Amino acid sequence: MVVCVDLGGSKVLMAVAMAEGQFLRRLKFPTQSEKGPEDILDRIAAGVQEMLKAGAETADRIVGIGVATPGPLSFPDTVVWDSPNLGWNRVNIKEEMKARLGWEPLVEKDTNMAVLGEYYFGQMQRCQNLLYITVSTGIGGGIMLGGQLYRGQNGGAGEIGHMVVASGGRICGCGRQGCLEAQASGTAIAQMAKELGQEGKGQGMFSGLGTVGAKEVGEAARRGDREARTIVAQVVDYLGIALGNLVNIFNPEKIVLGGAVSLGWEDLLLEPLRERVKAEVFPLNARDLQIEVTRLGEDVVLYGCIAEVGRRKTEGGKRKAEDGRSCIRVDSTNFF
Amino acid sequence: MVVCVDLGGSKVLMAVAMAEGQFLRRLKFPTQSEKGPEDILDRIAAGVQEMLKAGAETADRIVGIGVATPGPLSFPDTVVWDSPNLGWNRVNIKEEMKARLGWEPLVEKDTNMAVLGEYYFGQMQRCQNLLYITVSTGIGGGIMLGGQLYRGQNGGAGEIGHMVVASGGRICGCGRQGCLEAQASGTAIAQMAKELGQEGKGQGMFSGLGTVGAKEVGEAARRGDREARTIVAQVVDYLGIALGNLVNIFNPEKIVLGGAVSLGWEDLLLEPLRERVKAEVFPLNARDLQIEVTRLGEDVVLYGCIAEVGRRKTEGGKRKAEDGRSCIRVDSTNFF
Repeated sequence: MVVCVDLGGSKVLMAVAMAEGQFLRRLKFPTQSEKGPEDILDRIAAGVQEMLKAGAETADRIVGIGVATPGPLSFPDTVVWDSPNLGWNRVNIKEEMKARLGWEPLVEKDTNMAVLGEYYFGQMQRCQNLLYITVSTGIGGGIMLGGQLYRGQNGGAGEIGHMVVASGGRICGCGRQGCLEAQASGTAIAQMAKELGQEGKGQGMFSGLGTVGAKEVGEAARRGDREARTIVAQVVDYLGIALGNLVNIFNPEKIVLGGAVSLGWEDLLLEPLRERVKAEVFPLNARDLQIEVTRLGEDVVLYGCIAEVGRRKTEGGKRKAEDGRSCIRVDSTNFF
Repeated sequence: MVVCVDLGGSKVLMAVAMAEGQFLRRLKFPTQSEKGPEDILDRIAAGVQEMLKAGAETADRIVGIGVATPGPLSFPDTVVWDSPNLGWNRVNIKEEMKARLGWEPLVEKDTNMAVLGEYYFGQMQRCQNLLYITVSTGIGGGIMLGGQLYRGQNGGAGEIGHMVVASGGRICGCGRQGCLEAQASGTAIAQMAKELGQEGKGQGMFSGLGTVGAKEVGEAARRGDREARTIVAQVVDYLGIALGNLVNIFNPEKIVLGGAVSLGWEDLLLEPLRERVKAEVFPLNARDLQIEVTRLGEDVVLYGCIAEVGRRKTEGGKRKAEDGRSCIRVDSTNFF
């Protein structure tokens, strides 16, 4: 069994799972990152203890703990560096968790865990050249090339949300202007809706009380609201530019989209994105390309924790390239 | 000895070289791609025969022929697909050359050969995560990750010139709008100068007769010409966006710039680009980053041919990961 922790900017998902992928127990609570790293890490440690006490499993049946955190995360020392989503600087999660639980967890960037989850448990498994892109509060990516996770020189690879897609565009949390994250994330969508509201427009999106986010904008767009549809079109535009760039640069076999916006807007985004990317990139790069939304939903990161903890145990920490050259389609979530 | 062929959009460079990197004989002639693939390939084959006849070497001392061509080039079947720079569609260079010379050459995309040249013969060798970017008539890239050439699913990886850096910008040869190649290549620089001329401006760049290209713009900028400096600033801007994107996405250890514009404008581009990229990307991604201009000049692609033909002979076609984790600085071009 594996303990999985998906520490996100807004919520923490935790689970105890069988190495084959069945979840036995789950926990979910808000991150409240403003309380600082000590507080969150204490609550995660308490959550682990709680999950283990709640069942028949004892600590010796747990093969490992996998913790996914927002980036930037340095590698191989797995220290969180200046994370805009957590507001943390230089937190060594591995040591902090070990001090609290007595076990050293396997720590990996959340988007890296997600691409591993997709690679081992997704609908099309073992795709050799696979990009996972999360479109949620922020935008990030996980990269598998030749069947291997690619982390870059210091662990910083995959920050595809910080690719400029709109020169002279919105100021991003990272300091650049017009980053994909500043133009097409859940936060950007909410901001666009808010700006319309301030201009006295966008009434079709403000059907209820409270703040308007991607959910409300999507619903209004489905009802045919023109302003909401304009926001959706802009998001397709920016994501289309970004995906087109990535296809020309990486020539991946498959791009998998995840995160709350991709999952909630699949009907609004997926087909327009496929058409747009196919039309824009080099024909050679489009030849085998597939673009999909993950079927693992918001658990994709947890699946990555299961896969990576299990794999490192089995292989004794050795990285091994896969033999297959193409994706394997599976009808249901597979054991590995 | 190795026969090297760098088939470019405007010129063909050929050489006979020792596997250790010394050039024994050279040939250079214009591509004249408008004459079609048959004509160019005939002239290349004749050039190979001429170089071999000119010296004491006989065919049996040649271990192989390496041919570098503009992309897109499919892999592993090495067929040129819809190349905008050559105007070719579906030309199988390997078979065409074999039919003419009796030997099957090793065919690789020019930017891939260049990154291999830099990896094996550059000033900082064996950089595990290395991007080579050519800024010339067009803009393209070669990618080495974990000490291995990365070609993507179909051979199409590395088309970094076709990353959008100016939303709503110039129409690119590939059909997209605002691609790096359309905004910052030698062709784009000439176009910007021409447009200024048509508006009756840019007289400082038109000091002589003939067309104005990057060379003339660079010279005018060095003399302090304001309009030329504006063009240079724009090129730095677009290259800065592109390099910043690539650093956030790949977290490379080293980026090497080559091609006529990088070589001719090193004094104008390199420091501003270094500063800009360092200021814009994530601190983790900038930690070990080096940005340099190749010291192999316009021979970088030929060096790649030598390295790759030699390496495949030595290793019997087997790809082997390097052990080193960091670049090795060499004072002069090294043997491998």
